Amino acid sequence: MLLDGADEVGTQAGAGRVLLRFLDTASEARTLGETRVPSGTTIFDAASWNAIAIDSTCGGHGTCKKCKVRVVDGAIGVSDLDPRAFSPDELADGWRLACRADAHDDLIVEVPPLQTRPKAALVGVGRHVILRPAVQKRHVVLDEPSLEDQVSDLERVFAAMDDLELHASLAVVRELGGVLRRSHYDVTAVVVDDELIAVEPGDTTASCRALAFDLGTTTVVATLLDLTTGQPLSVRSRLNRQHTYGADVIARISATMIDGDALEDLRRQAHSTLAELTKEVCAEAGVDPTEIYEIVVAGNVTMIQLALGIDPEPLGMAPFIVASRAPVPALASDFGVDVHPRAPAVTFPALGAYVGPDIIAGLLATGLTRDRRTRLFIDVGTNCEIVLGSASEAVATAAPAGPAFEGATIRCGMRAADGAIEGVRITDSDVEIQVIGDSEPTGICGSGLVDVVAELLRIGLLESSGRLLGEDEAAELAPGLVSRFRRVPNGKGGEERVFVLAWRGDDPAESVYLSQVDVRRLQEAKAAIATGWKMLVRRLGIEETEIQQVLLGGSFGAYLTPASAVRIGLVPPLAVTRIVAAGNVAGEGAKIAALSLPERHAATALLDEIEYVEASGNADYNDLFLEELTFPA
Amino acid sequence: MLLDGADEVGTQAGAGRVLLRFLDTASEARTLGETRVPSGTTIFDAASWNAIAIDSTCGGHGTCKKCKVRVVDGAIGVSDLDPRAFSPDELADGWRLACRADAHDDLIVEVPPLQTRPKAALVGVGRHVILRPAVQKRHVVLDEPSLEDQVSDLERVFAAMDDLELHASLAVVRELGGVLRRSHYDVTAVVVDDELIAVEPGDTTASCRALAFDLGTTTVVATLLDLTTGQPLSVRSRLNRQHTYGADVIARISATMIDGDALEDLRRQAHSTLAELTKEVCAEAGVDPTEIYEIVVAGNVTMIQLALGIDPEPLGMAPFIVASRAPVPALASDFGVDVHPRAPAVTFPALGAYVGPDIIAGLLATGLTRDRRTRLFIDVGTNCEIVLGSASEAVATAAPAGPAFEGATIRCGMRAADGAIEGVRITDSDVEIQVIGDSEPTGICGSGLVDVVAELLRIGLLESSGRLLGEDEAAELAPGLVSRFRRVPNGKGGEERVFVLAWRGDDPAESVYLSQVDVRRLQEAKAAIATGWKMLVRRLGIEETEIQQVLLGGSFGAYLTPASAVRIGLVPPLAVTRIVAAGNVAGEGAKIAALSLPERHAATALLDEIEYVEASGNADYNDLFLEELTFPA
Repeated sequence: MLLDGADEVGTQAGAGRVLLRFLDTASEARTLGETRVPSGTTIFDAASWNAIAIDSTCGGHGTCKKCKVRVVDGAIGVSDLDPRAFSPDELADGWRLACRADAHDDLIVEVPPLQTRPKAALVGVGRHVILRPAVQKRHVVLDEPSLEDQVSDLERVFAAMDDLELHASLAVVRELGGVLRRSHYDVTAVVVDDELIAVEPGDTTASCRALAFDLGTTTVVATLLDLTTGQPLSVRSRLNRQHTYGADVIARISATMIDGDALEDLRRQAHSTLAELTKEVCAEAGVDPTEIYEIVVAGNVTMIQLALGIDPEPLGMAPFIVASRAPVPALASDFGVDVHPRAPAVTFPALGAYVGPDIIAGLLATGLTRDRRTRLFIDVGTNCEIVLGSASEAVATAAPAGPAFEGATIRCGMRAADGAIEGVRITDSDVEIQVIGDSEPTGICGSGLVDVVAELLRIGLLESSGRLLGEDEAAELAPGLVSRFRRVPNGKGGEERVFVLAWRGDDPAESVYLSQVDVRRLQEAKAAIATGWKMLVRRLGIEETEIQQVLLGGSFGAYLTPASAVRIGLVPPLAVTRIVAAGNVAGEGAKIAALSLPERHAATALLDEIEYVEASGNADYNDLFLEELTFPA
Repeated sequence: MLLDGADEVGTQAGAGRVLLRFLDTASEARTLGETRVPSGTTIFDAASWNAIAIDSTCGGHGTCKKCKVRVVDGAIGVSDLDPRAFSPDELADGWRLACRADAHDDLIVEVPPLQTRPKAALVGVGRHVILRPAVQKRHVVLDEPSLEDQVSDLERVFAAMDDLELHASLAVVRELGGVLRRSHYDVTAVVVDDELIAVEPGDTTASCRALAFDLGTTTVVATLLDLTTGQPLSVRSRLNRQHTYGADVIARISATMIDGDALEDLRRQAHSTLAELTKEVCAEAGVDPTEIYEIVVAGNVTMIQLALGIDPEPLGMAPFIVASRAPVPALASDFGVDVHPRAPAVTFPALGAYVGPDIIAGLLATGLTRDRRTRLFIDVGTNCEIVLGSASEAVATAAPAGPAFEGATIRCGMRAADGAIEGVRITDSDVEIQVIGDSEPTGICGSGLVDVVAELLRIGLLESSGRLLGEDEAAELAPGLVSRFRRVPNGKGGEERVFVLAWRGDDPAESVYLSQVDVRRLQEAKAAIATGWKMLVRRLGIEETEIQQVLLGGSFGAYLTPASAVRIGLVPPLAVTRIVAAGNVAGEGAKIAALSLPERHAATALLDEIEYVEASGNADYNDLFLEELTFPA
């Protein structure tokens, strides 16, 4: 029911796609690239998303009229602006403004040689992103007004940038007259998207920065970007100060339901975390915070709503409702970030309460929906997000994996910090461990947990049902390891079986071990995730073997041993080289959005490109989950 | 030079006009109306400006697709939206969305019968305005979310109004979840233009108000409007608290140049004046201020800039530069007005520093550029604004009349308040006076000044050069009045001739009189104004006799005796019935803008429809001015 009837649940199915082929008129090898995008995407965006540059100074607002292309095959409409940019003959010949040409049909598009070669940056999962930031600086030297030229101050500035169609707030108008006259009309205009946010005396075009944040439930990362080069100037991370309210989003949502002041305090804690990071990255790079003109914040729905002071209660209980799927307009100051006073804060759209803006940001970084290959993206966490697909079709779901991978609920579990066992290799007679920080082992983190379970399964000391062998059974199979099979008090007056990983004295209870209960926790977490991606595999009507790459997001993904992940059935059985740590993809997505306006449109397009399959509350999900509780034989 | 070369100065000449004729498909007498509008005006706006209703629920945003009309003659383009609203056959047949159809050619347009007859209000100078306020309230009862319907809170509200394309601020999103759940999804959406500014529990559609302000240099008027009927609920006026800084705009601008704190204080004084009036109109009408969702403020450029905290210094000296010709986006709170916290504040565009938003508002109220008749509009004040024209062409200028009409610089001058002589009639032997408030005369106000000078001219006691006859000359001409011809000390050790209007004891110096110097002041003021409109008459290449109506704005215009105004040459020599007091036109314009979104577009169109002729600093102006110093013979 769930799997076959998924059309009826979750959000609408992805819109139809069209195939665009770009030709270079200047080159012998004519094809610049080919891409499949949602019907209705502009030619300009489609090209940008595939790192194919088309001339533009306005970034796709329809105002500079420079993005001229010729459609040589396929049906294309004529926009309101086209007749102002082209003669009737040119229109008949297929010439169009790329940023106003919505592709509703497969097209072949000729791109004239570029007037200026735009800069690009390598960012995300190997993505080549053309630098077209929302933030633009323009140095302009204006004619001074006279009785013959009584144009207003604001119009005078706007007229110097007639390739843009600009707005300005009261605050800018208040400052404008003074700045113009003090600087003798030699100024730099700071434009973000279509808004003039400041006019600075003299030429300040060299200082143009943005800040990208990954506002994680646990860790917050700030990257200060130089928008003139696309390169990071400094990166800092720290714990989210909200952690005193609990490790996961549910704990924090619950806090706001119990305590009327908690929402305001959680908001403040998020703000102080972001503010402190801002100070740190600025100090490290020697940058004045007022030269930062935009911030981009990636985070899950709960983190974003808490930081913006939006009550998260509807996120915490069925039917799990987001306040706004589209990003809410905000300023950096709404996130407590003290940069330029009129710097906007950009966030990402949400597909649902649990496939949130962080996942959209992550997908932007992976380029999953731009790629021909069928790829599986898993962002492992307490709530785990899973996306499967390619440029043809993509589906997503969320899996409630619980906190086992973060070390919580595991007897000797701990976060991936100094002293955590992060890797385990078991031979016939010995256990080799890797410990974070080269220190004495004090516990085991998620990747270590997966490793030890995978190794025990490999040797046969753990059954696929998840049962840990008894001492006598182990003695037969691996006599060299038998001393590690012990029993410790289970805290309820009884005992439980354990496998000791690292001795601390002679008492196993004082040592670092894996317990039978830990295995059960891992089985549940693994089952949640495997059920999720198997649901998606069936939804696309493909075989597991057709998956060409697995991308693991987050720090867990970076430490996980791919072979172990396959062994326990956490990921499909691919060659280990095809199981790739994608890194902090949400943070990379935030950087990409800071560097490129068309990529922000791509993030919005993702909402239509990805079909969300809602699992929670469905009986079929539970059946599949029970099957997945066992490990692969 | 000035008059012939005016193309080269001031703002650009008016854009070309097109003629639109509207036919009623349902009626025998097919013509609904005919109008000349600037090329590029939408059919929807052109119809609205002439009180011709076309169906629409979105007010012309291109989102409701209800404003279907058929163009039966003339060339008309196809907009982006038309193919979504019409079949190819319908398009070929001339069907278009009126709000997206820019008229660049003379057109004949068929308007289908209305689905709903819109309300209208009589406002301004006899104008019939269709009620299409920016503020709309919609009562919506939404489906509660479920696992099968996880649409976000904001999208759920937006989806219930799919004829609009809405935005919402962070503040609205913060409140939304709570309001929806507390009210069981039975709410009223408050939309202003394309922004959702509030969601209120239950059905509150009956309470829908706006506030219109005339922020005058001297007097501030507030009108509380019921937007469901278009009728005023209450009106209050009071002195602008800024008057302690001086009576005119120059005094207030000067204050900001001398004293660094004056701008902030002037801003506060304007805010407290507006805030007090808001309290008064709300108390009088028994209206909760938070049920006021928009304010409209008409005022001259200086008043608007001071109230918004924008430095007015560039307005006060050549070349007289406005901060922004277009209205600056603002909230009611930016004017210190405490109504709904997200209520926008709407202002009018400016043509220049001295033909400001108040004049644009006034012209909107007069409908001068919509009328076939050639009319002259004069707003008398310290700085006097003059507009001449019709639906075919219109020109404007500003004249520095000085404060004589307000009673300043006149020996016995006073404002039009209790005790002021406001009307004078002179017979052979007596002087009949009208005094404001039926009290003892204590001085003479502007209309009284014009009257006495006109009467003295009529009898011949004042020469057209402005010379007041001596006692002996007067004795010959009007022996019954000779006792009123006296001399009083001129304050410089000498004496000057006076004509006593009202005795207070025997001493003429203690009485209310007209002095020779007063006549000179009036001559200068009259000359400034007459030079202004004569410049405009020449600019249009017409004769004075072609002027069909004179509209006098402001309270001065209401008290002035038309025959006297003609006699002294202040206005062209028309039949007195054609000289009309237009009342507080700026305030009426503010009301019109509050009642109709298309009328706001009309205000913006005025910038292109009116050519501004800049007089100041031009030698030719002074020559003409000297000629005009004499009174008509």
